[in-house]
Amino acid sequence: MRSIKLTIEYDGTAYHGWQVQPNARTVQGVIETKLAQITGERVKLIASSRTDSGVHALGQVANFKTSSSLDARSFLRALNGLLPEDIRVKDCEEVDEGFHARFSAKRKLYEYRILNGEVHSSFYRHFSWFIPGKLDLARMREAAMKLVGRHDFSSFCSAGSMHKTTAREIYGIQVGRRSGFVVIRIEANAFLKQMVRNIVGTLVDVGRRKLTPSEFGAILEARDRRKAGMAAPAKGLFLVKIHY
Amino acid sequence: MRSIKLTIEYDGTAYHGWQVQPNARTVQGVIETKLAQITGERVKLIASSRTDSGVHALGQVANFKTSSSLDARSFLRALNGLLPEDIRVKDCEEVDEGFHARFSAKRKLYEYRILNGEVHSSFYRHFSWFIPGKLDLARMREAAMKLVGRHDFSSFCSAGSMHKTTAREIYGIQVGRRSGFVVIRIEANAFLKQMVRNIVGTLVDVGRRKLTPSEFGAILEARDRRKAGMAAPAKGLFLVKIHY
Repeated sequence: MRSIKLTIEYDGTAYHGWQVQPNARTVQGVIETKLAQITGERVKLIASSRTDSGVHALGQVANFKTSSSLDARSFLRALNGLLPEDIRVKDCEEVDEGFHARFSAKRKLYEYRILNGEVHSSFYRHFSWFIPGKLDLARMREAAMKLVGRHDFSSFCSAGSMHKTTAREIYGIQVGRRSGFVVIRIEANAFLKQMVRNIVGTLVDVGRRKLTPSEFGAILEARDRRKAGMAAPAKGLFLVKIHY
Repeated sequence: MRSIKLTIEYDGTAYHGWQVQPNARTVQGVIETKLAQITGERVKLIASSRTDSGVHALGQVANFKTSSSLDARSFLRALNGLLPEDIRVKDCEEVDEGFHARFSAKRKLYEYRILNGEVHSSFYRHFSWFIPGKLDLARMREAAMKLVGRHDFSSFCSAGSMHKTTAREIYGIQVGRRSGFVVIRIEANAFLKQMVRNIVGTLVDVGRRKLTPSEFGAILEARDRRKAGMAAPAKGLFLVKIHY
């Protein structure tokens, strides 16, 4: 069996997340249906990350096995011809049989976009979290720095997860401004369930001066989800890139 | 009566253009309904430009007369509270009684966005024209320069218009690249019906080497709509700014 790797962009607005679920439209479900049409086989996609309902991707990676003889470029064209316009395959290549989109991933980069201004944007209403009040970015950066390194991130892991371990390593966090947005980029070896959204929600409490950076540090150390803030809305989150 | 000026942003995807029409959802119609709720009066909006179905605006300007005593800031907040998320009032101010959003306009700036790459974008599917093949921008610029100045633009005016004169003055055209897009910006004293879309459609024929820049010049001089190319799709067009 050949193994094919897809790099996928999607506007997650109309989907109940990546993973196949009964009676729900999901990104995985839609792509698997189109792959079955193309190959005549029952195809199972393995993704780097199971993004939540409403979360977007610029560079989700997924792979599948097939006995089809179609070359990679033809897979890309056939898929983009059949898929709805809110899902685009940006790249397609044949990979070694041992490649596994989830287990082979070394680093993952997520970006969270906050529209921080007086009036929301009609164009970014599905692609950002609108926060009208002033955010103190210096405080948010001071708090964010406490997350860098290897930690038990239980405080930022949502209930209902089935992780074997809650230790993850964050390589870097940037909190910056980019044309009207506050952009938070987090790179780690892997993420717990809703970890980016829980971190962003709690960092915003710091930016709004509801929490101090040292209280933020204490939340991390508590290893207790009940201590952290609300999860930031899904619509501001983008899976940007997976490194292998 | 007081006169209030609104600066309005909208995602035109779900609207049959700006202007009120029977049995169609229009931007003007939706805003007038909300203004009637706020003021208790029957309010008539005058806009700088009647954008077509599917065209977007970053800075449409409209004004209305009212006997309401509500201050400008409260109008902005009340409107944004009542309007759907795909229309946002970005600014609101009280202006002189003589102000007329259309007749007082001195210059208008439109921008057209072409996504020029191998694969379309899931995020820009409603906000750009996807052209996969290579476009020769140097040729497009050479052709575009012929439009600058005062000309009879009949060749780029769609049928069904009721303009008193077809002479307009273009102050400048830029054809450039911006992160995967080919962006065409046109500034003029005013525009004929679908003038930007007709110009862009014909410039793309030049970029695709179906027309030479001198053939493009001859189309302008012919003053005959049948000579020019197809109108570019509405979804790539943005009304950017009106100068008074």
